[in-house]
Amino acid sequence: MIASNHNADITEEARFAHQDLLAFGKQALERRGMRAEQAEQVALRLLDADLLGHRSHGFWLLATYLERLEAGQIAVEGEVRVLNDSPAAFAWHANRLPGAWVMQRAIDTVRERARAQAMVCATIAECSHIGCLQSYLLPLVADNLLVMLSATNAGVASVAPFGGIDPVLTTNPLAFGIPTRGAPILVDQCTSLGSNTFFTAFAQRGESLPAQWLLDADGAPTDDPTVLSANPPGTVLPLGGIDFGYKGFGLGLAVEALTLALPGSGRRTRPDKFGQGVFLQVINPAMLGGLDAFLDETTWLADACHASRVRPGAPPVRLPGERALRLRQQQLVEGITLSADAVQRTAAWADKLGLAMPVEKKAEGHAAHAR
Amino acid sequence: MIASNHNADITEEARFAHQDLLAFGKQALERRGMRAEQAEQVALRLLDADLLGHRSHGFWLLATYLERLEAGQIAVEGEVRVLNDSPAAFAWHANRLPGAWVMQRAIDTVRERARAQAMVCATIAECSHIGCLQSYLLPLVADNLLVMLSATNAGVASVAPFGGIDPVLTTNPLAFGIPTRGAPILVDQCTSLGSNTFFTAFAQRGESLPAQWLLDADGAPTDDPTVLSANPPGTVLPLGGIDFGYKGFGLGLAVEALTLALPGSGRRTRPDKFGQGVFLQVINPAMLGGLDAFLDETTWLADACHASRVRPGAPPVRLPGERALRLRQQQLVEGITLSADAVQRTAAWADKLGLAMPVEKKAEGHAAHAR
Repeated sequence: MIASNHNADITEEARFAHQDLLAFGKQALERRGMRAEQAEQVALRLLDADLLGHRSHGFWLLATYLERLEAGQIAVEGEVRVLNDSPAAFAWHANRLPGAWVMQRAIDTVRERARAQAMVCATIAECSHIGCLQSYLLPLVADNLLVMLSATNAGVASVAPFGGIDPVLTTNPLAFGIPTRGAPILVDQCTSLGSNTFFTAFAQRGESLPAQWLLDADGAPTDDPTVLSANPPGTVLPLGGIDFGYKGFGLGLAVEALTLALPGSGRRTRPDKFGQGVFLQVINPAMLGGLDAFLDETTWLADACHASRVRPGAPPVRLPGERALRLRQQQLVEGITLSADAVQRTAAWADKLGLAMPVEKKAEGHAAHAR
Repeated sequence: MIASNHNADITEEARFAHQDLLAFGKQALERRGMRAEQAEQVALRLLDADLLGHRSHGFWLLATYLERLEAGQIAVEGEVRVLNDSPAAFAWHANRLPGAWVMQRAIDTVRERARAQAMVCATIAECSHIGCLQSYLLPLVADNLLVMLSATNAGVASVAPFGGIDPVLTTNPLAFGIPTRGAPILVDQCTSLGSNTFFTAFAQRGESLPAQWLLDADGAPTDDPTVLSANPPGTVLPLGGIDFGYKGFGLGLAVEALTLALPGSGRRTRPDKFGQGVFLQVINPAMLGGLDAFLDETTWLADACHASRVRPGAPPVRLPGERALRLRQQQLVEGITLSADAVQRTAAWADKLGLAMPVEKKAEGHAAHAR
């Protein structure tokens, strides 16, 4: 993390206009060598994560990306290499080019092909960090495509095989985009109990976990989040925990096969930190059981879930992505709120690059927010 | 369940030769109207489940299938209707024809197409019960294909949306077959904490659950398995339980989209008990990042999992399907062990159909097992 004495006084979150953050992000990334089209896609994707409320994958990451550009861990020259291409599938090797930019091209290609193909899949080896999976689902579900997306890092290991204590896998997220006649269902979940970031946040706040969601290095269940950074480190339990963790382990193995083995570049060959493997797949319901029938069923399902009674006093049932889409609508109008830490990291890079920091957006109709 | 006074004295499990159970199963199913090729596939599939140790989907089910044939809930006449067909995907409507027979044809078709296609998927609407997902993976992983398979029943609801208390979904299994250079990884897991059968077995034995894995009808966590058959019924918690059940819920929704909405026949249109929706997909690694790279990576991963240390005194790490494949090898040689209940149900139908009950196989080199 970058410390900045100059901006050390920033201790509160702040709100900014989307366009101002976008302009700043593009400029900063270009200053560190990205081509304009790359910088635009990367900045847009970071902001999409913030819009959906996934701050750990949002503008907070800009500083990390700038550091990686400086260190040569993200490539900016060259093109994606096509390893294989057939109508229903293509395999790319991304040579560490910017993840959001590579992904945008993959999504454009998949969308185009899904007009004539019932199903299209893409694998990408050695992509730079692609960011928030959920945000990539949006243009595809808008085309009434059923999406499956997964990405993982061959260089990160924080999850042990179920029953074991050595980290081999990582938190391996799996995302599904499901169109309905109303809001889409946007599933984006790791196959462990929580993401690495989720547990790190507890450690940074000096808090214990609410329950024993981790194993220490000897395999004993613990609520201490600092075991993940201990030496030797503990591990994150797979989804299902102590009792049913073989299920999360099984799903985690499936993600490894899809995102690392299929692209042909995984833990065996690329045990470093900065490349991601990606698996993207879309299915066109119109070319299977029919689009109307598909949407009728998914809409019925969404309605039935919403109609479920809850325990007395509990909030109504929410579908995956529902809160994120609401927050997105709100922040597109009111501006994007960045955490104090994100503001501080961004301001430090503004200083370093000689760029003007985006101007804070004041809430309309309210007194200006003191900073 | 079928009661048989004549065989009420059967109280122990017993072992039979595969060929004897197969011959009996085929005859019985044919006596109740199945075509010979249908009866063979269905009997084979039940035995495959027993071989892999999944008794609830094994020969125990033969009696259920015979009952359903009598009640007209499984069709035997007619053919699968093709709703859509394109190189990478086909959608069938199975008109309640025997699940194992329909699936065998789907698998043959998918295998054939995967020689020229990087990826093929199939949806099947209104299939009769297809049985054990894991066993269908075997011929496909033997062809070095990465498999994803899911099936569910639109007429069964036992899982509430996370945060709710009304059953809307069911336990919605998801299976993945992952080839390696050694034994394949065979993931087959429901997206709830356990399957309906898993909890029913506790109730039948009069036992409480080890922990609060269910909700009662008011949404209170409980270890009482009888709540699932209460009126109104309780629900099975999604994978992740009280703390992380939104993840299992998300995966369950994805299964609903794949197996019910894509085939075009789900809970909205077909809320009865005897039809399953199926989603089957294979990916040919040779046409993406390359077969050698794929197998190198999956084999490395399997080896790394096996090499993980375990807690002192704990058994070595097992990969999904490992125990099942070992049991399969063993039972192919030594015979298939049926539970006392399965023997009893089978014997009752032998009486009813006037068929000779298969002869029990004695352990070689041991004294005959008294019955």
